[in-house]
Amino acid sequence: MDTQLINELRQLSDGVCVLTDPADCWAYGSDYSRIHHCPAAVVFPETHEEVVSIVRLCHEYATPLTVRGGGTSVTGSAVPTQGGLVMSMEHLRQVLDFDAHSRFVTVQTGATNQSVQSYCMKKDLFWPPDPGSAVTSTVGGNLACNAAGPRAVKYGATRENVLGLKAVSGRGDELICGSATTKNSMGFDLTRLLVGSEGTLAVITEATLKLSPVPLRTHTMQADYDSIEHAAAAVIALMSQPATPCALELMDDVCVRLVNDYLKKESDNDKCVRLLIQADGTEVGADADAEAIRVAATNAGCLQFRLAQDENETVTLWEARRALSPALRQVAPSHLGEDFVVPLSNLSHFVKDVRACGEQHGVLIASFGHAGNGNLHVNLMYDPQNEEETRAVYACLDDLIDITLKHGGSLSGEHGIGLHKRHFVSRQIPEGTLNLMREVKRVFDPKGILNADKQLPPDPATGQ
Amino acid sequence: MDTQLINELRQLSDGVCVLTDPADCWAYGSDYSRIHHCPAAVVFPETHEEVVSIVRLCHEYATPLTVRGGGTSVTGSAVPTQGGLVMSMEHLRQVLDFDAHSRFVTVQTGATNQSVQSYCMKKDLFWPPDPGSAVTSTVGGNLACNAAGPRAVKYGATRENVLGLKAVSGRGDELICGSATTKNSMGFDLTRLLVGSEGTLAVITEATLKLSPVPLRTHTMQADYDSIEHAAAAVIALMSQPATPCALELMDDVCVRLVNDYLKKESDNDKCVRLLIQADGTEVGADADAEAIRVAATNAGCLQFRLAQDENETVTLWEARRALSPALRQVAPSHLGEDFVVPLSNLSHFVKDVRACGEQHGVLIASFGHAGNGNLHVNLMYDPQNEEETRAVYACLDDLIDITLKHGGSLSGEHGIGLHKRHFVSRQIPEGTLNLMREVKRVFDPKGILNADKQLPPDPATGQ
Repeated sequence: MDTQLINELRQLSDGVCVLTDPADCWAYGSDYSRIHHCPAAVVFPETHEEVVSIVRLCHEYATPLTVRGGGTSVTGSAVPTQGGLVMSMEHLRQVLDFDAHSRFVTVQTGATNQSVQSYCMKKDLFWPPDPGSAVTSTVGGNLACNAAGPRAVKYGATRENVLGLKAVSGRGDELICGSATTKNSMGFDLTRLLVGSEGTLAVITEATLKLSPVPLRTHTMQADYDSIEHAAAAVIALMSQPATPCALELMDDVCVRLVNDYLKKESDNDKCVRLLIQADGTEVGADADAEAIRVAATNAGCLQFRLAQDENETVTLWEARRALSPALRQVAPSHLGEDFVVPLSNLSHFVKDVRACGEQHGVLIASFGHAGNGNLHVNLMYDPQNEEETRAVYACLDDLIDITLKHGGSLSGEHGIGLHKRHFVSRQIPEGTLNLMREVKRVFDPKGILNADKQLPPDPATGQ
Repeated sequence: MDTQLINELRQLSDGVCVLTDPADCWAYGSDYSRIHHCPAAVVFPETHEEVVSIVRLCHEYATPLTVRGGGTSVTGSAVPTQGGLVMSMEHLRQVLDFDAHSRFVTVQTGATNQSVQSYCMKKDLFWPPDPGSAVTSTVGGNLACNAAGPRAVKYGATRENVLGLKAVSGRGDELICGSATTKNSMGFDLTRLLVGSEGTLAVITEATLKLSPVPLRTHTMQADYDSIEHAAAAVIALMSQPATPCALELMDDVCVRLVNDYLKKESDNDKCVRLLIQADGTEVGADADAEAIRVAATNAGCLQFRLAQDENETVTLWEARRALSPALRQVAPSHLGEDFVVPLSNLSHFVKDVRACGEQHGVLIASFGHAGNGNLHVNLMYDPQNEEETRAVYACLDDLIDITLKHGGSLSGEHGIGLHKRHFVSRQIPEGTLNLMREVKRVFDPKGILNADKQLPPDPATGQ
């Protein structure tokens, strides 16, 4: 990296921190994908204006620039594959505006999801996106990959809960998108174009987020089924009636068994498929919804239905869901964690096809996730030290891509593409549409400095 | 228009209808804005493939192409200001796919909003966007201007209720955007970029729409207040609690008086500000929500609160809202109908500033609309035959633009920009952001053939 650029970065303003020692930069070279490329330097802007100046310099020097939030991406979207500069947003975490009556908050995008929740909770409001990484992932990261979580089934994902953005294009131009209102029909919707673009179009510095009122009561329910067919039928019944659950999570029988083993639970339902369901609202409204949910969920194959009667029982019901990650780690040193999403009517066939595919390749697959959205975390268990197992999981993954698309699905529901799925994108999105996306990318970032190698597959014309 | 182009259009396929007689084309030159420019020809494609061919021809001949749905735009966004070709979508109205279990329908975009509702109602599903024009406006038109209506306060506008699109760019390239799933994090969100772009980027031919379950019960309520302050406080209270109404409409005191006069009703509440509120859900859930709404709505300045006890009373309560349009026509031959939107905390001040502005210019202003979204239809009453009145309303409108922006609002909540607001856009959106939008437009439509003169303000660099 050009030393002149480093010098110019250091002169941007009083005290802007620029790290160049590889020992200091090392930690900024990876994310939860565990892929690692050490950047040449790391910079920590303190203001929107500094971000503008940094992007302009990188544009001028044609230096790769990777923006970093909490580093929790599982797809490698925060990995600086081409070295260059990493811009860490960790010093940009202020709340800039909070209007409880209008139900919005404007924050700098380095703020963590959880810090925003804590702040808004003071006025009985919350921001719906609730990824598992909420404690450490940032609003900017949530925006970049259109993050979601269990609540999306009722409240929508990040895209549905953002009103406006301030951002800096790859040319260093400031963009003001959207407004602080819940409706807006003024011009091209650059706000939603930037959401999910994984930092490849612009650096989002500020976001105005749409907030929702905290429910006054929440009910947690668990329903066990004798088969995926009956569980999927219950999911469809639940989503076909007007009491939309605020969480509708599924664990397949592999997950239930692994979790029972992990928690050393003896259970008659070791082979069941499980739904974890929540209802929220006003006190009376949540009670009414829970009853409507019970009726919809207790179909022919329902083995057991439980409504948590108190906080302890609620914790117990969520315990199995929370035990999933450690339980999975116990059966294999690693796993590929996909986040496929399919239309609900195909959910049952999809889960069975996924299972058959794993058996065919000799790969143990554990599936769980946000069933109300048809969004399943399909985990392919393996030992990366074992070459044969590694070959098998990647061959299996390749087939799973086809299976997902055959069922009318999408390859990512909430993780995004990053490095991980980049080479599968053209199996879902036709080349003509991808070419247009490439041209949109060139408009925002003509030198291709922003988060290189991510999201868009290499252009067949140039190989880049 | 090139006669060679007309010939080529006629040869596209068997029986594609092309009108060129001005008497036939006349009706396709206007929309609900009443602005009129007669097109040189009108074409009626029957298939997606014909749309591709037509756009390619227009691109080749650099001929202006204006896509037409139901012609209900109030902003002039369907007016072919540069003549050229109008493409009417009226023969493209088929339902292509309907998956009730996955809650989506795929339709050709010439289908009317109401025909889609009727179709989906058979499976107890509905598509949330409910503009006043639903009977005649098309899905394509709803997508083009991000249409909404009363239900948006709970269910979102068009943008929040679309999953995927098939479209044709201004170069004649086919675009496939989104998927039939309720979550998707694969690549740039071209779906939402096209929603609200008013036919300036691409012709949308097919849309996969997100459906919701029909509520089992709906309650209608009316609350009258002694002042806009108290009505606005009730709106804030209603939107701060978790029983979100499925309609939260406001009529200011001018509207209430005009409607009472029109309906020849004697009322003590002639000076009140009125809210019309709906709750929906399961039977017990809707009852519970209505009660939560009653509690939130009955604040200090509430003069009267009524919950409709039966269908007759429900009709009576909506009667006043429906009588608004004829009542407005009775007091003035015409009006400018704006659809400003402001953050809820500014709603009361905004309404008062609007009133004061009208008084200053000697213009009667009647405001009503979707208060839960802060989206008000501000109607400036005048006689277009009267030059002095005409000058006054346009001077007043100019000031109202500043007032809306001063309150942190947006100039359009659901009508879009069209011709009508094009010259105000740069007061809301900074030039740097507009320039980027212009470059995005050039990517999709390099020759600028699609819906020329709409939405983006003229480029100061070129005057175009």
